[in-house]
Amino acid sequence: MLRKDSLHPALSHSSLEVMNFLNEVTLRFPEAISFAPGRTYEGFYESGRLAAQLQGYVRYLEKQQGFTEAQVRTRLFQYGRTNGHIQELIVRMLEKDEGMLVDPQSVVVTVGCQEGMFITLRALCATPRDVLLVSSPCYIGIVGAARLLDIELIPVEEGPEGLDLEDLERKVRAARAEGKRPRALYVIPDFSNPSGNSFSLELRHRLLEAAAREDFLLLEDNPYGLFSRERERHPTLKALDKQKRVIYFGSFAKSGFPGARVGYTLADQPVIDDAGQQTLLADELSKVKSMVTVNTSPISQALVGGLLLENDCTLLAANQQAIRFYRENMETALRALERAFPRDAAWARGVSWNHPQGGFFLVVQLPFEVDDALLERSARRYGVLWTPMRYFYIEGGGERALRLSCSYLAPARIEEGIQRLARLIQDCLEERRP
Amino acid sequence: MLRKDSLHPALSHSSLEVMNFLNEVTLRFPEAISFAPGRTYEGFYESGRLAAQLQGYVRYLEKQQGFTEAQVRTRLFQYGRTNGHIQELIVRMLEKDEGMLVDPQSVVVTVGCQEGMFITLRALCATPRDVLLVSSPCYIGIVGAARLLDIELIPVEEGPEGLDLEDLERKVRAARAEGKRPRALYVIPDFSNPSGNSFSLELRHRLLEAAAREDFLLLEDNPYGLFSRERERHPTLKALDKQKRVIYFGSFAKSGFPGARVGYTLADQPVIDDAGQQTLLADELSKVKSMVTVNTSPISQALVGGLLLENDCTLLAANQQAIRFYRENMETALRALERAFPRDAAWARGVSWNHPQGGFFLVVQLPFEVDDALLERSARRYGVLWTPMRYFYIEGGGERALRLSCSYLAPARIEEGIQRLARLIQDCLEERRP
Repeated sequence: MLRKDSLHPALSHSSLEVMNFLNEVTLRFPEAISFAPGRTYEGFYESGRLAAQLQGYVRYLEKQQGFTEAQVRTRLFQYGRTNGHIQELIVRMLEKDEGMLVDPQSVVVTVGCQEGMFITLRALCATPRDVLLVSSPCYIGIVGAARLLDIELIPVEEGPEGLDLEDLERKVRAARAEGKRPRALYVIPDFSNPSGNSFSLELRHRLLEAAAREDFLLLEDNPYGLFSRERERHPTLKALDKQKRVIYFGSFAKSGFPGARVGYTLADQPVIDDAGQQTLLADELSKVKSMVTVNTSPISQALVGGLLLENDCTLLAANQQAIRFYRENMETALRALERAFPRDAAWARGVSWNHPQGGFFLVVQLPFEVDDALLERSARRYGVLWTPMRYFYIEGGGERALRLSCSYLAPARIEEGIQRLARLIQDCLEERRP
Repeated sequence: MLRKDSLHPALSHSSLEVMNFLNEVTLRFPEAISFAPGRTYEGFYESGRLAAQLQGYVRYLEKQQGFTEAQVRTRLFQYGRTNGHIQELIVRMLEKDEGMLVDPQSVVVTVGCQEGMFITLRALCATPRDVLLVSSPCYIGIVGAARLLDIELIPVEEGPEGLDLEDLERKVRAARAEGKRPRALYVIPDFSNPSGNSFSLELRHRLLEAAAREDFLLLEDNPYGLFSRERERHPTLKALDKQKRVIYFGSFAKSGFPGARVGYTLADQPVIDDAGQQTLLADELSKVKSMVTVNTSPISQALVGGLLLENDCTLLAANQQAIRFYRENMETALRALERAFPRDAAWARGVSWNHPQGGFFLVVQLPFEVDDALLERSARRYGVLWTPMRYFYIEGGGERALRLSCSYLAPARIEEGIQRLARLIQDCLEERRP
């Protein structure tokens, strides 16, 4: 019998339970309307497309790259290069969709974006002195990865306007004063998970300046960037990055499909050793990746490659329908909230929510505690699921807030779900009234 | 500019270079005959089979599991359960091929066997006191994974008869005396990489006893077990394990194909927490995996599932042609060595090699040092590649030995390659003669 306390301490930490919660709560209450996981809408997927995408990629290898049949076989079936084989296509996409000019050598194809974050943290954090700054509230994937690697996390406040730069400077200085080395700051500048907030263009510039001044890297995670409610999108931090301060995590989970488990990390930072030998950070990440997953399934890469090829390497164009769908879902949710919590009803006045410019998530503030017991009651008696925001804070916070994911439900379900949520909240408020 | 010495120390360690060496040396000398990487023979693969395997798995979901079209779509395209969805098929295979009766709940499907090793080490090793015993010489994948997790490695000698149990007991006691906790011992009991050696049935039993007596786990890695030269195969440690001492790593890279990047870890150990709550180690591994890769591509799993289904869940039967091929390659290599190093030639008497009972690898002992310079010369002037055995030792060893992989070359190339190797060795010996 193994004792749990003999296993790695992260396994007893709540952050590692949250991922499972998000995956499984929906299974526990299959009848409930679930605003819990940030899933994609599956209506966009067709099983029949997979063979066509694979075939499209094979045709590209044969016709444009001059591969023989045997070389195609090697590419698909054999171990491949650690950092992947669809970098050229990713680079074309980044130029078209994000205006980013990137050297394919600096791209590491990863098993989802998550592996990219994991291997980057491992490469960057060398000693217990190395700490990671994270926006707070924070995506659970980076928190869990850091905990597994025994990396200390320092939360930096993020409000409706994005990251609080004063808090950032304060935290960096305090960490330095304690002999720590703030190695990097993790942010989702576009339609963040969990908050739904975005950074203004000015904040992006000021953040890059702060990173240069205080000498840390920026880890920019951008899974939702395409899904803007407005026509105008902000440039990514990486697109504005003139000093190679930004490591960029890209995902095909939302713009392609999650089941491919393909993401990428853009790490163009030069690395120099004592002998003056220079490599790219992407080369160093390759060594880490080779010991975590060896490489990313070449077949999964071929499917993503086929998807890129059949869309002329622009996922922005390919996702027009999805962009519209997620935009309309967010607007449906916002309208439903307006109706369900009327400003002229006294009970509803303590309830507020943000108006994200895009993405999958919004946050509702309540005038009372939001905890697991409330969620259980909500699921069991009101038939509606959501995520307590407290799950996304490292050192307390979000106690009176919940996250709604509006990504994969049909509009009528969103409206019904928000009515259910409103009944729960009204009942809670009335019970509390003296 | 990042300084290399500011990155994780494992990145400056040679073990992480070896994986890249094995992948890339063949590209540097494309004309050479390469006995370096333990690759599979690609003649068994057909690109056209992929769509059929995927289709076979979908048919199984629809016909045998009663999935609707929408459920199939969810299964293939969406995030799935962290620990995978082909456990039932893997369990049927383990029963047919290995005589192992396994609960599907204790199986974690991983991104290759490598991820299984990585997440298992992470779960098991909680503090710097936790050390990992490894057979020496040792597979580079476990060494690299441990280094990335700052886990101390203790080598245990492995000779032609398999692991040295006396050295094992000595090392365990010495570690304990220093306040360390020997957490587990990593071994490849069947046709090991790099040595080609196997453990006798008696050694297997004694190893299980030692693990129980000294209270550590056994990590059994079994990628080559199907590829026996003899009709009779030994039971795996896991098949003999009555006390749940063994964590078993399975791979489809050799018995299926490497490009799926699908492996599995069998971790049926109960874990108990302070409150008396019981889980399986597989559940704990799930939490680690969710933060490393989220889950294994459901499409890759479907391909492996399809392969299992079309072979009635026995890979032993499905691999008969491959088993014959690898057996004949090994025998070709052994015969070629006999011919190239005749016992009646004085110069050849200092050269010896082992006679593995199966698998991909054999080891040649030489009467002089085998290093990178010799490899460079061998590649450049003699047109033959191999791997210095010193790469596989943690604390010195193997300085006068090299590894030959006989897995993916056609027989005529094996014969020619060994003749080239013999010319190199003869020339070296003659140069050294006074």
